[in-house]
This record gives sequence, structure tokens and C-alpha cells, in this order.
Amino acid sequence: MMNYPYPQLERPSFKWNRNVNEDPKVHEWIQTIPDEGDMDWSNVDVTILGVPLSRSSISASAASENPDAMRRAWKSFSTYNIDYDIDLSALRVVDLGDTRQHVTDIETCHRHVVEAMESGRKIHPHTIPLTLGGDHSITAMLIKGLKRAEPHNRIGLLQFDTHFDLRDLETFGPANGTPVRNLIESGTVKGEDVYNIGLHGFFNVKSLKTYADQVGLQYVTMREARRRGVESVVNEAIKKLSEKVDTIYMTVDMDVLDMTQGPAAPASTPGGMRTDELFEAVTLAGTSPHVKAMDIVCLDPTKDVGDFTIKAAVHTMLSFLTGLSMRGK
Amino acid sequence: MMNYPYPQLERPSFKWNRNVNEDPKVHEWIQTIPDEGDMDWSNVDVTILGVPLSRSSISASAASENPDAMRRAWKSFSTYNIDYDIDLSALRVVDLGDTRQHVTDIETCHRHVVEAMESGRKIHPHTIPLTLGGDHSITAMLIKGLKRAEPHNRIGLLQFDTHFDLRDLETFGPANGTPVRNLIESGTVKGEDVYNIGLHGFFNVKSLKTYADQVGLQYVTMREARRRGVESVVNEAIKKLSEKVDTIYMTVDMDVLDMTQGPAAPASTPGGMRTDELFEAVTLAGTSPHVKAMDIVCLDPTKDVGDFTIKAAVHTMLSFLTGLSMRGK
Amino acid sequence: MMNYPYPQLERPSFKWNRNVNEDPKVHEWIQTIPDEGDMDWSNVDVTILGVPLSRSSISASAASENPDAMRRAWKSFSTYNIDYDIDLSALRVVDLGDTRQHVTDIETCHRHVVEAMESGRKIHPHTIPLTLGGDHSITAMLIKGLKRAEPHNRIGLLQFDTHFDLRDLETFGPANGTPVRNLIESGTVKGEDVYNIGLHGFFNVKSLKTYADQVGLQYVTMREARRRGVESVVNEAIKKLSEKVDTIYMTVDMDVLDMTQGPAAPASTPGGMRTDELFEAVTLAGTSPHVKAMDIVCLDPTKDVGDFTIKAAVHTMLSFLTGLSMRGK
Amino acid sequence: MMNYPYPQLERPSFKWNRNVNEDPKVHEWIQTIPDEGDMDWSNVDVTILGVPLSRSSISASAASENPDAMRRAWKSFSTYNIDYDIDLSALRVVDLGDTRQHVTDIETCHRHVVEAMESGRKIHPHTIPLTLGGDHSITAMLIKGLKRAEPHNRIGLLQFDTHFDLRDLETFGPANGTPVRNLIESGTVKGEDVYNIGLHGFFNVKSLKTYADQVGLQYVTMREARRRGVESVVNEAIKKLSEKVDTIYMTVDMDVLDMTQGPAAPASTPGGMRTDELFEAVTLAGTSPHVKAMDIVCLDPTKDVGDFTIKAAVHTMLSFLTGLSMRGK
Amino acid sequence: MMNYPYPQLERPSFKWNRNVNEDPKVHEWIQTIPDEGDMDWSNVDVTILGVPLSRSSISASAASENPDAMRRAWKSFSTYNIDYDIDLSALRVVDLGDTRQHVTDIETCHRHVVEAMESGRKIHPHTIPLTLGGDHSITAMLIKGLKRAEPHNRIGLLQFDTHFDLRDLETFGPANGTPVRNLIESGTVKGEDVYNIGLHGFFNVKSLKTYADQVGLQYVTMREARRRGVESVVNEAIKKLSEKVDTIYMTVDMDVLDMTQGPAAPASTPGGMRTDELFEAVTLAGTSPHVKAMDIVCLDPTKDVGDFTIKAAVHTMLSFLTGLSMRGK
Amino acid sequence: MMNYPYPQLERPSFKWNRNVNEDPKVHEWIQTIPDEGDMDWSNVDVTILGVPLSRSSISASAASENPDAMRRAWKSFSTYNIDYDIDLSALRVVDLGDTRQHVTDIETCHRHVVEAMESGRKIHPHTIPLTLGGDHSITAMLIKGLKRAEPHNRIGLLQFDTHFDLRDLETFGPANGTPVRNLIESGTVKGEDVYNIGLHGFFNVKSLKTYADQVGLQYVTMREARRRGVESVVNEAIKKLSEKVDTIYMTVDMDVLDMTQGPAAPASTPGGMRTDELFEAVTLAGTSPHVKAMDIVCLDPTKDVGDFTIKAAVHTMLSFLTGLSMRGK
Repeated sequence: MMNYPYPQLERPSFKWNRNVNEDPKVHEWIQTIPDEGDMDWSNVDVTILGVPLSRSSISASAASENPDAMRRAWKSFSTYNIDYDIDLSALRVVDLGDTRQHVTDIETCHRHVVEAMESGRKIHPHTIPLTLGGDHSITAMLIKGLKRAEPHNRIGLLQFDTHFDLRDLETFGPANGTPVRNLIESGTVKGEDVYNIGLHGFFNVKSLKTYADQVGLQYVTMREARRRGVESVVNEAIKKLSEKVDTIYMTVDMDVLDMTQGPAAPASTPGGMRTDELFEAVTLAGTSPHVKAMDIVCLDPTKDVGDFTIKAAVHTMLSFLTGLSMRGK
Repeated sequence: MMNYPYPQLERPSFKWNRNVNEDPKVHEWIQTIPDEGDMDWSNVDVTILGVPLSRSSISASAASENPDAMRRAWKSFSTYNIDYDIDLSALRVVDLGDTRQHVTDIETCHRHVVEAMESGRKIHPHTIPLTLGGDHSITAMLIKGLKRAEPHNRIGLLQFDTHFDLRDLETFGPANGTPVRNLIESGTVKGEDVYNIGLHGFFNVKSLKTYADQVGLQYVTMREARRRGVESVVNEAIKKLSEKVDTIYMTVDMDVLDMTQGPAAPASTPGGMRTDELFEAVTLAGTSPHVKAMDIVCLDPTKDVGDFTIKAAVHTMLSFLTGLSMRGK
Repeated sequence: MMNYPYPQLERPSFKWNRNVNEDPKVHEWIQTIPDEGDMDWSNVDVTILGVPLSRSSISASAASENPDAMRRAWKSFSTYNIDYDIDLSALRVVDLGDTRQHVTDIETCHRHVVEAMESGRKIHPHTIPLTLGGDHSITAMLIKGLKRAEPHNRIGLLQFDTHFDLRDLETFGPANGTPVRNLIESGTVKGEDVYNIGLHGFFNVKSLKTYADQVGLQYVTMREARRRGVESVVNEAIKKLSEKVDTIYMTVDMDVLDMTQGPAAPASTPGGMRTDELFEAVTLAGTSPHVKAMDIVCLDPTKDVGDFTIKAAVHTMLSFLTGLSMRGK
Repeated sequence: MMNYPYPQLERPSFKWNRNVNEDPKVHEWIQTIPDEGDMDWSNVDVTILGVPLSRSSISASAASENPDAMRRAWKSFSTYNIDYDIDLSALRVVDLGDTRQHVTDIETCHRHVVEAMESGRKIHPHTIPLTLGGDHSITAMLIKGLKRAEPHNRIGLLQFDTHFDLRDLETFGPANGTPVRNLIESGTVKGEDVYNIGLHGFFNVKSLKTYADQVGLQYVTMREARRRGVESVVNEAIKKLSEKVDTIYMTVDMDVLDMTQGPAAPASTPGGMRTDELFEAVTLAGTSPHVKAMDIVCLDPTKDVGDFTIKAAVHTMLSFLTGLSMRGK
Repeated sequence: MMNYPYPQLERPSFKWNRNVNEDPKVHEWIQTIPDEGDMDWSNVDVTILGVPLSRSSISASAASENPDAMRRAWKSFSTYNIDYDIDLSALRVVDLGDTRQHVTDIETCHRHVVEAMESGRKIHPHTIPLTLGGDHSITAMLIKGLKRAEPHNRIGLLQFDTHFDLRDLETFGPANGTPVRNLIESGTVKGEDVYNIGLHGFFNVKSLKTYADQVGLQYVTMREARRRGVESVVNEAIKKLSEKVDTIYMTVDMDVLDMTQGPAAPASTPGGMRTDELFEAVTLAGTSPHVKAMDIVCLDPTKDVGDFTIKAAVHTMLSFLTGLSMRGK
Repeated sequence: MMNYPYPQLERPSFKWNRNVNEDPKVHEWIQTIPDEGDMDWSNVDVTILGVPLSRSSISASAASENPDAMRRAWKSFSTYNIDYDIDLSALRVVDLGDTRQHVTDIETCHRHVVEAMESGRKIHPHTIPLTLGGDHSITAMLIKGLKRAEPHNRIGLLQFDTHFDLRDLETFGPANGTPVRNLIESGTVKGEDVYNIGLHGFFNVKSLKTYADQVGLQYVTMREARRRGVESVVNEAIKKLSEKVDTIYMTVDMDVLDMTQGPAAPASTPGGMRTDELFEAVTLAGTSPHVKAMDIVCLDPTKDVGDFTIKAAVHTMLSFLTGLSMRGK
């Protein structure tokens, strides 16, 4: 059996029995690394990474179970998107497995995430990394890994989120409430290169808004986005970021969704984004060649109702790949 | 006790205690056939048929429990629709009961459906048949029964559905994934006389889309319908079909709904139709004199959350009757 | 320990441990009456009253558990509303506790509600009373108490509700289906001073619509409100009422919500109002100086799904306070 | 249509379609009063009465929905009890329907219960009345009705319950916590003629135990019953009561069950009775000719988990009828 | 890739990533057939077969999802049984996958089951077949397959079940209510060679009991088993059957469990067997060299509460293997 | 306001409104430290400590929410235990609040637990500490704190648990699978001074059993305990430990319960202990003067079904206090 190429990773815990045919389901299409022999990375388009970490979440969360839950839910989706007449099966997508975890040492868990992203950028730099969290703390680690691999890359953040995620690092450490602060304070991403869409209601304290303004962070509240149209807001965000940065990293915190459509995101709220708006937004972002990485975080599948959120998350991932497929068309 | 008029049917398993008064609830208004004496069909407007069959469903389903679940839910609805100032109690609606089932012989179950529709068309041809499924396989049987009774009737299909239901008959047989293919291949309905509204996302494989195009099937995706407005799309569909066919048969697969509003439809998805859009669409269709039959299928009440879907289904049925009441006004 | 100032009330069953800081959560901000010493009412802006009564509900309800459920849910909300850049912590809000209940004597329960409102208007007339029900029967009692304290005040009712609540008093008594009839027949509020937004579908019988028309009650159905825009409808309602009445009492029956967004309101229905529409409407109403009292009723937290409704209710209450904060700005 | 014989009652809200055959299900076997023509009471053995009242419950309860829930659950039971080789279909059982309710007047609700029992004892005194509650307040009313019809009948109470139900009448009124106190203080039943089985743990306050001892009430705690064997305890209870009273009225508060087996009884607790123990106990009691009436109370079907409690309640009712069938054998 | 050895079977839909180590979990220990190269059957002790069929169930069931649900639940169990100090990892167990299904042709589904068992007995006759259903109709097919492979084998049935499963074949066909009748009427198993443990309450009609007596079927009701001790009853059953038959086939219908411990078995009932009794019984049966095949049926994982039933089913399977490991010790 | 006496602790997040009366509920009886003025510890019998920590759990857990969940559930219990005729209100119990948490630094969280126990032993050494976890990792910290305060105290562990909790410290760190190993390897408790009751089935790997035997750890499996009677086993355990140790620390991992009675303990299993057995065991242990500390761990209230587990946990705590009340009687 081949040595697994990443020391920080383990293979996915299970492998679907793939029936290769004309009309695949998503679980039959996404590949894993072969048990024996070497992997040919040359024609891989997208690599999927699971980060089963949520002990760094402020409130108790089982977002650690999300990567496997999304893998199981792939079975309900075909690769063909009728809205855009695009078949994703033209892309080659490889599931790398999950970052290794330590039960009581969160720092080690985070280090594995940084290193896995860094290694990936070195082993197969041409692929688009798509990460399935885990809680939002991992976004800071993923972007740090990216920065380590490509130090001169100016990275911007397109964030779909009900929250700023700008809480105080000293009090919380690298938790799911602090990744954006972490990135700004560590100099990895500039405040002005962050663009948040989805803030609304009573879910951010005033001092964080003040901080956001001080560092020049850009944001459009959900209420404003709804009035202007989510598509137009996303277009503007991408346009603005593209003028400044080399790479747009897109992070989707599932709590951006209205809580009735994202009940498994423990911090989702009433009045949030609808799934059809999110799919539209993410597809659109996928079409931009500046968007070179994506993650989906803060989905605790044990809290789901009728698989609403887990299916929305898979659809979000596939919507991004749809946009990706349309690039240059 | 009178012999029941249909050999393929059994009476509803229970009968509401009817309190006839000025302001009835739906369960007090809808009648059953009298235990003794003959039924006078002359002033009946609508006949309701239950088809408690779902063992022909691809994935396990208890849609067989839907007819009784809808009957129980009638209790939560009055006959008066304040949106249109229409009181349905002016219509006379009779619940015929359910088609007889066989536990292990699906063909017999289906034959009873064909025959029940055929008989109904002969016994009380002036009534509008409204069928409560069961899974979507029954739509093929209901239309075949209609065709048998009226062989020269050109029948078109107005389908609200997330799926084409065009899967391969040889592989699946007359299952819930194949009714439209079944109708086309058997020559009962022409491909061009099918109009599907609600397809979207990653829930249809590409080869079925190719087949649909080959047979001239018409469809508007959910995304497009949302952009153009569901009402305008429905108006166009009815106009186009009315130019060609004698009878429009309307089938509502409850999985057309967004999964958060139709959780009991096992194949409902994120990004689907909202209930208010569906009610509007079905009311509108009800006003067209071409629409002469309707069914509601693929609702498994055991999977419901807070009665969301079962109440939406009853509302859909009553919305159609509202449209019917407005005909010629 | 100080005698509690209201004989009809008991303190809240529990008290949050308040951490006074720059960025409070709602539960840290809302105060209770001190255990010892006198209360200084002079700078109190809003008083909150719980009415844990639902044995007067037509169908079985545990809306009696709502006041405590909302108090517990305060913990999930900060005081800062980013949509309007308003921090509620500038307001001083005091939780008075709950009206005393009798297990088998509904009349006594109702009398306590009337007296509590009357007393409040006398002890701290400058505060805005905000009541957390309880079923809708209490709205009649609250307004009667208001009227007793201020007999020359002409009171209008702005009602967000799926129902008229005009059922026959003789048959039902002061139940949750009769408060508006109760107010009209007792001469407390004129029919023409009631403005209902949210009626729709098959949830009101025809004779009540006839009665509503006879007494000149004003209403805009949900369907019409959606077409015209909820904001424009609310603006018109407030404008019309403000021309005639001294005080607009706003009552929000949570069953006005679509059942998927308000599952804990036992009579919520498919096709109802969305939460974002309700928040917008209530914020807008809050900005009007005529709106001088509010209640939120008919939320049975034991029927909730994923806290959808309880969080929507807290958000509704905070949206009103946001509007209040914007008055005169 | 025949006038219904009881002014205090309404027919059951629905009627099962009865298929009379060799091997009936319980819902096919239990009869209702004919729509037309007179009822022949002479060969009726048992009459069933529903009391859909729970607004007299201390904590919010939907036990009012229990009578219909039990009627629906009859469908899952055959009439044949293989444990005892007894077929209940030899008994003739008639469902009288439900006592009429008033939404806001609990006294009227209770009066109907008293009168319905009194009337029943006069119209068909030879039948065994079996009542489906409703909350436990109704037991006081049922026994008062019995006493009114047969003033010289000394009535004892065999109570399966986690609680004494001896709370203070002045504070609570005729609520579900007070029926036994009510019966004792009104002189309807002597304290010494009450025999309670199932008390345990921390669910009764000390002062009630003191009161129970003062009035000579007999009880065996669940812990003691488990050690001695439930059967032996029930045998002793019946023996002791039979020596003193003419009629043993058996009341089963479903909260006597362990909460994992009776989750729909809101006050059921850990450490309670198992269902197999309860069925054994009730069957045994049924064999005693002194046991002449039974009720089942405090089951709120909206709180059930997987129908555990509602099925246990039907089994309890049928176990009693099994015992009844064995009398004199 | 090797052709799969059975035409009637498909590989399991997914494969666990096996970490071979000293202390395996069950999912790491059970093997599947290698993707390439031949299978060496010589040292295989037990073969597992999934039968994802439940459209032959009388009431709607998703027992078809049980084989995969059990495979997923293996992850929660280690191979070491501390009660008996037995480590199952000494056994070699191979998961053969699932029988192929047809959506609308139940007869074909059943034929695949017969043939799969027959083939297995020929390809690796020394292994113990352990089947994961599916509904109870499959037991008739499995035993017929066994009989076809070994026509002179006298087969007895040790059945743990709440029901006789002796319903009329003509009415129901080969459904989940008829397998024992099917075996008896087809001459595959003699009535006297069937031993049922677990019948109780009101869940069997009298005529089936009469039939059972006529054909000499043996049974001990749950009530009697509880009084005599389940172990003693199982010992007697095995002793009696062993005197007459060559092979004891053990079938466990999960509805034998008390419904609170087996909520996912749709026909489980109050008063049924406890899990600890079932584990004891099955371990004991496993120790008998006459018991040469086992199945577990009628578990619909979509109805489970907190994984109670699915974990009980895996524990039942492992208990049998524990008994098997103790043979000859 | 008084400075809180413990730097490692925060007050309970909320305080019940205490109604001091003759017949208190548990939430009215248990006190908190006064907001102002000094605490008089002299007549305090028991101190309660919450440890809202579960990020040290191997599988994701919200056991951190247990302390507040238990506090809320106190409301359902009176202080009087009718099984033993003991009223707990004679004891004085003080709730100290919760240990301070850090989101991403588990070591700090654990240090606070050690220090809180150590401080408690110094500030009020005569009180019995009763801790509400949190996951099982905290037991190691609590006992280490005890040992620090009283270095010459030989401490034994009476453990009710399905698991050994002896996993490898190097791999897992101080997680919920390692506390007993942690205590043994750190020399805090001797292997022979640990007595485990409740191990059973397939939930411990063989190598841990080997380790347990090597260090002389004592245990009785659940199966054996059931055969010998739980009481007799507990008596023996206490007797054996009392001969060797000064202090018996009792730890109850709620996963010792059968999963149907302890569904909120994520690792509870089929075949576990019944609640009535656990209450009996813990009451008995409470009577022993050697038992000087107790904890209840691994209860994740978000996974509960119908409050089964949370109520069982409160009952367990009160059962211990019942035993405590009986000491010396």
C-alpha cells in the first residue's frame, strides 16, 4: 500500500463503491487517492480537504462530523446542473481525506491544517483547494498555510457570514469567533481586503463594528444585500477585491443562512440568507478566476433538521464548482 | 348496506362526524358515499380518490399513508379563502375512498388505479377527479385510465416537479421515477404535450435532459421561473398546452417544494419552490377550463416536520378548488 | 426584602447573572426590580410583563411557557442592531415579572392581567409596556387595563395575525379566538380602529369576514401585502390609524408567520409572513410615536423546531425596540 | 338522525369504517351509537367515555387530545390476547363519545363530566364505565357522578400514580393535582378507602404524605412494590378494599410509568413502573368483580416519543378488559 | 477488477478504511471481498449478506436501509466482549454485499435472495451465513435457498418475534407477515420444527393461533418466558429442536423487543423483550452447534430514536458471534 | 458586591427566585453565595460545583451544557424522598457556580478544576463536594485537587461506568477516555483502589482489560452485577474499598445507563444499567461515611430524549444526598 502523501492527513474514513457510468452521482465521481501506486496530480482540478475540528468552537459544536456527513450526502446529488446546463463530471476532483486530530491539543490540530494547506500548494499548486470544516477557526489556519506556500500572494477574503468573526484573540485564542481578527493581526490579510456579506440583526456587538471600520473592513449587511440584490452585491465585492488582491479566498460560514434553512449551523439566525440566494452568490463567485480557494464551515450535522443544512452545504460546494466550470466560457 | 359502486375501491378508513353549519371546516364539508341507498352523482363537482401505494417508489417511502393523513388534516382548514373571497362550500365534493392494494403484487395495485379512473370517467364523467397519492408511478396509471375512458382525448401534462421522471422503464418498471417516460413511450401523452415547471440544481442526470429535448418536452427551470415570476410561467404553460390538447392533467409532485417547506417529500431539495408560489400557480391553473384532473403525489407524512408538508398539500388541493370555483366568473 | 410593588405580579422565576460591560447581551442588559430598596422608575423606558396563561386557548397550548422561554433566549442576542447601527443599551428596560395565575379560575387570571396593565399605567405611565403572552385572549385584557387607566384615550389596534380573532364571545368566552370581538363589543376599541395585516388562505370562516366588514374593520391580506410590499402596507396602516386614534396598540400573533418560520405558533400556516418581513414591519411601527404598547402572543415553545420561533419572537421584540430607539432621529 | 341520548356528550369526532370479520382489530370491534334508530343497551358490557379536558391541568397539557389519539391507536391492536388465550370480541363495547367542552369555563366542563357519569349509571347501569381522560381532575368528577347515581354505594379508589394528588383545593381548585383531596374533603370517598400504588422518589412533598397518613390513606411505594412484586401488592390492595367498599374505582395516571416508557405523561419520572408490570396489575384488577369502573388519565399525546405511551395506554385499557373477560372463569 | 463472484449481489455501497491494529473496532475487522484477485474462502468463518428489501412489507417500511445502517454502526463497537472475555477478532468475517433489487418486481428481488443463499452454500458451505434484512419475507427465501443447496437437511426455525408470521399467503403473497406459513405450506420446514419465543399481548389474531396449534408449531409467550427466565426457555427450545432437525435457523425479528428499546421496528410493542434478555438468548443460541444460520429483520432505521434499535441490532449480531466463538470451549 | 471567593469560578449564570416555604422544590432549597456580605460556611453540608467543559471529549460533546441543564431541572423535584421518608431540606447545600473556561486552552480549563477543588477543600473542608460535569476528563482533575489539599489522604474510586477510561494518555492527553489511567500513572490513586461497576458488551478493547488486570483494578461487569444484584455488588465494593482507603470518591458516568434510559450520554449502550438500579446503588453508597465526594459526568443535554437523562441525573444526585442524610441513623 502506498504511503499516504501527507503526514498531516488520514484517508477518508470510508470509500464509496464507485460505479463509473455516463450519469454519475457525486459520490461516484469524486475520487480518493489510490490505495497502491502513485497519484497523478497533473489533471486534477480540485482537491477536497476535511477538517474534523470543532473543539475550538466557542459554544459546543459537532462540526467535526461535517466532512463525513457531507461525503455521505454526496449520494443525493447528480453531477449535472440543469440550471446552467453544466455537467461537473468534466472536472477531476480528488478527496484528500482529513487532517489528523489530537483530542486535547488544539494547537497541534491547527498546525496540521496550516501544514496540509501549505503542502497541498506545493504538491499540486494548480488545483483549487476546497475545505470542508470544522469550525471557523480553521479559515485562519488555511489562509496562513496558503500564505506560507506563496508569501508574495496578496490574499483577500470574501466572507459569507452572519458575524464579523473579529473577536478578541487574547480572550478567545484561535477560536471560531476570531479567524478574521487573527488574519488581520498576524498581517496575513489586510482589513481592507476582507469583504463580508450577510451581517444582520443582533448578532454582532458594537465594538467589533467599530474595529471593522477602523481596519477598513468592507461589508454589506443582509438587509442591504436583499434590497440591492445578492448578485449585484457579490459582483461588486469580487470586482473591488479583484482590483487589489491576487487571490480571493471564499469562506462560507453556514450560519449566514436563515436558521430555518440552516438549522445545523448553531449560530444561524432568523432573517438570514435564503439558500437560493447563497447558491446564486457562490456560483457567481466561482466564475471569477480570482477566487482560488473555498471553505464551508460551522455546520454541526447532529443539529440538522431533515438534512436541510447538509444538503444546502453540498449544493453550495457544487454551485461553486459549477461557477468554476463556467470560467472562460 | 349498499354495495360499494367500485370494485377497485374501499371506503375511506374513517368518516368524520359532520356538523353541517354555516361555516364548515373542510372535513365537515367533503362527503363520502352514503352507507345505504344510491348516490346521486348529478350535482357532484369533484371526486377525490386516495391511492395508498408507495411500494413502487425507488427509495423507501410511506407516501401510502398520505391519503389518510390529508383527510385528517382537513380539520385545520375552513372552506373560505379570504385571499379571493371564495367559499368552496358551494362546490360538492365526494371522497370515493382508496384503491385496493396488494402487498406483494404491484401490477395489481396499478391495475386498480387504471380501472378506478376509467370507471369514474364512465360513472360520473362530469366530475373533476382529484387524486391523493401515493408515489408518482400512479400518475401514469391515472392518465392511462383517463385515456381508456376517452380514447380520443388528447391529454397534456402540466407537471410541478423537481425531476423529469423520465427514467428508463426497462430498468425501473412503472416506478415513481418513470411515469412521464411511461406515458410517452406508451403513446398516451406526446412529449411535446408535457410541460414541467420546477426542475433545478443537481437532481436530474444529463441523459434525461437529452431525452427530454429529443421528445420535445417543454420545461422551465425553477431558477428561470423565479426570475420571470411563477405566475407568468404558469400562464404561458397553460396557454401553450391549451392550444394543442383537450385536457390538461395537472400533477403536483410535492418534492417541487423547497425542502424546508416540503420536508415530507423525500426528494425535495434546497432551492425549490416556496409554498406561496405553488399555491398561486395551482390556483391559476385551476381557473383554466382545460385543466380537468389533478393529483398530488410523493408526500410521505412520516417524514414531516411540524406538519409543514401535509398542510401545504391540503392548501394546494384547496387552492386548485379555489381556481375551479372562479371559472367563468 | 422589599414588598413587590404589584399584587398581581410575581418576580421572574429566575434572574440572569448580569455582567455589566461595554458590549452586553440582551439578558445582561434587561433589568429586574431590585430585591431590596425602592425602584426608581423615572428613567425607565420600557417595562416587560409576562403573562403565562394559555388555558384560555381553544386548542391545547403551552404558550404559558413563552415568557420564560423568551427570557432564556435573550442570551443569544446582543443589544447592537447592525442593520440600523442602533445600540439598544441606551434604553432602560425593566422586566416586571409575570401575572399571578390560578389553575382552574380563568377569570381571576384575566383580572390580574387587566389590573397589572392598569397599575403599570399609573405607577410608571411614561414607560412603554411590552407584554409577552400567553395566548391572544390577553390582548383584550391588556387593552381593557389600558383603557381603565386612561378612559379618554382612543385606542387603535395594529394586528399582525393570520386570523381575525373575531369569534363569537358567547360560545367561546374570553378565549384566544375572541379578543378583537371582545374589544369591539365591550366598546373598548372601535371596529374601524382595528387594522389587521396577515390574513390569508383558509383560516377564517366567511361569517367573520362579514362581521369584520360590518364593523368597518380594516385589513390587508398577506397575498395583497406581499404584492404591495409589507413596508408600504404598514406605513399606510399607521398613517390611517394615527389620524384617528391617540394610541396604537400593536399585537403580534406569532401565527402570522409562515409555519416553517413559526412552527411553535400552533395556528401558523403555509403561505404566511416571512420573518424578515415581520422584523421590517415591526421596526417601522416602532418608529411611530403613536405606537405606545406592544404584545407578542400565541407562541408555544414546546412545539418549536430548532428554536426557530422563540428566536424570531425575541428578534421581533428587539426590532420594535430598535424602531423605538430611532424615534425623533 | 336520532337525537344523541346524552346532552352532555358529542359523538366521537370520527368513526372507523368497520369491517366485521372473524379476526377483528380493536377499532373494528368497538361500536358507536347508531346514527338512526334506538340503541339497545341490554347486551352492552362496557361503555367508553372520552373527556377531552386538560385546561384544568397545573402545567400546560394537551391530554385533551388523548381520547381521539387512543381511538386512532386502536387500529394497531387485535382483540385476541395470546398471553391469556382470551378474545375480547366476546364483550360488547360501545364508545359514547366525548363530554362537551367550554373553552373558558372549566366549571361547566366538569359539570358535564359529573352529569355524563350520572346519566350513564341510570341509562345503562349494568355496563362498566371506562373513561379516557383528560387530566386527573376528571376522576373526582367521575366518582362524584357515580356517587350521585348510587348514593349508598361505598366507593374505594385503587390508584396507580406517581403522586398522591392530594394538593390543597383552595389554592388549586379542582385541578389535576387535587382529585383525591377533593373526593375525601367532599365526603365522596373515605381516606382509608384510597389505595395508591406507585409513589416514589422526589415527586411528592412531605406535607401531603403527612395528610395522607392523617386520613388513613393506604399506599405502597414503587420501590416497595418492586421488592414485593407488583402482583402481590395489587392482590393485597384489592383484598383490603374489597372488604370495605362496594365498588372499587380504578384510576391509572399514566405518569405512574417510568418516563422512558410513558414519555407522554408529562409528570412521569425515572424509576417508575414498567409497562409489563402495569399490564399485569391492571389485568389482575380486572378479574375482581369489585372493580366496576376505570379511567386512564394524564396522557398528552403531543409529547409522546414513537407512540410509546399511547400504545401503552391502549394496552392498559385492553388488559383491564382481559381481566374483565376472565371474571367468573 | 475481479468479477464479483455472485451475479445476484452487489458489493457493499461503501468500504471502511481499515486500520488493522491490536484492538480493532468491528468496522475495521469485518472484511469485504478484494477488488482484485481471488477470494480465499478457506479460512472464512462467517459471511454477511445484506438484503435491502422492504417493499414486501405490509405497512410501509424502510427496513431496506438497515444493512447500510448496521454497517455504519459497526464503528461504535469493539470486537472484545468483556462479559465473556471473548475477542471476536479471532473469527474471520466477510461482508458479501447486498442482493440486487428491482424497484417494481418483488418476485425478482426474492429470487435473488434464494439464489444468493443457495450459491453461498455451494461456494463456501463451511461458513455461517448471517443475513441483515430487509423485512421478514426474506427469511422464507433464505431458508428456501438453504434447502435448495442441501435438500436433505431438515431445517428447524428458532424465531424471536412478537408475531407468528403465519398470515394467509393467498391474500398477502410472500410478505413480511407470511414467511413461516410460506415455509410450512411449501414443505420447506415442518410446523413442529418451528419454535417461537416472544409472542404476547394483542398482536396476533386468534385464527393464527389456531393454525399454529394445528400444525404443531411450538411457542412460549413473552409473559411465560419472563416468568421462567429467557435463558431457560431458549435452552429448552434448542434442546427440543436439536433432537429433530439438522440445522437450526435463527431469525430475530427486531419487533420482539419492547418498543421503547426497539422503536425502529415498526411493529414492536409495549411489554416486549428487553435488550439484555435478547443478547443473552442469542449468545446462548450461538453456542449451539446446531444453529447454522441467522438473520436480523424488520428494522427500519429511519424510525429509530437515538440509535436505540440499530445499536441493539449490531449488539445482537455480535452476541451471536460471541456464542459462536465459545463453541467447543 | 462581594468579590467572589474563588478566582477559578464564576457564579451560576442564573439564580432561581427562591420561595422559602414548608415544602420546597429543589431549586428553591439549594442556595447560591450571597451577592453582598460574607458567606458563612460553618453549617454548609454540601457544595455543588459546575464544570462546563467538554472540549476534552474524544467525540464531540455538549456536556458543557449539563451544569445549567441540571440546575434548570431541579425545578421538577421536591426535596422529600418518599421511598425513604427523608426530607433533604435538612441539609444545607450551596451552589458555588462554574469553573472558568478558556475556549482554546484546555490545560487552563483543567487547571481551574484542580485549583477549585483544592481551594474548596481548604475554605470549607467539612463540606461534601458534588461536581456536575462536563466530560469524564474532569474526574482526574478533581481528584488531583483533592490530593493536593490532602496529600496523605489515600483515595479510592468507586466508578459507575460502561468503560474503563484507561486509554493511553500519550495518544489522547487528559481526555474523557483517560482519567483513570491518568490517576494511576500520576500516582494519585492506586490501581487496586479503583472499583468499576457497569462494564459490559463490546465497549472496551481487550488491551485495556489486560492493563486493568495488571494494575489490580477491580471490576464487576453489568451482567454479573445483574445476576448478583446491584445492591450486593455495591455493598461489597464499598466494603473492600473502605478497608484500604480513607476517602472513596464516587464518579457516575451517565453512560453506565442503558441507552434507552440515558440517551443524552453519547456513549451509553444497549444492555446498560436501569435507572432504578443506579438510584439504589448511589443511595447505598451515600450512606457510607467513606464516600466523601461525588461527580456526575458525560451527560450532553442536547442529545436528550424527553429529558430522560437530565432527570435521571438530578435523581442520581438527590439519591446520593438521601444516602448522606441517612448516615448515622
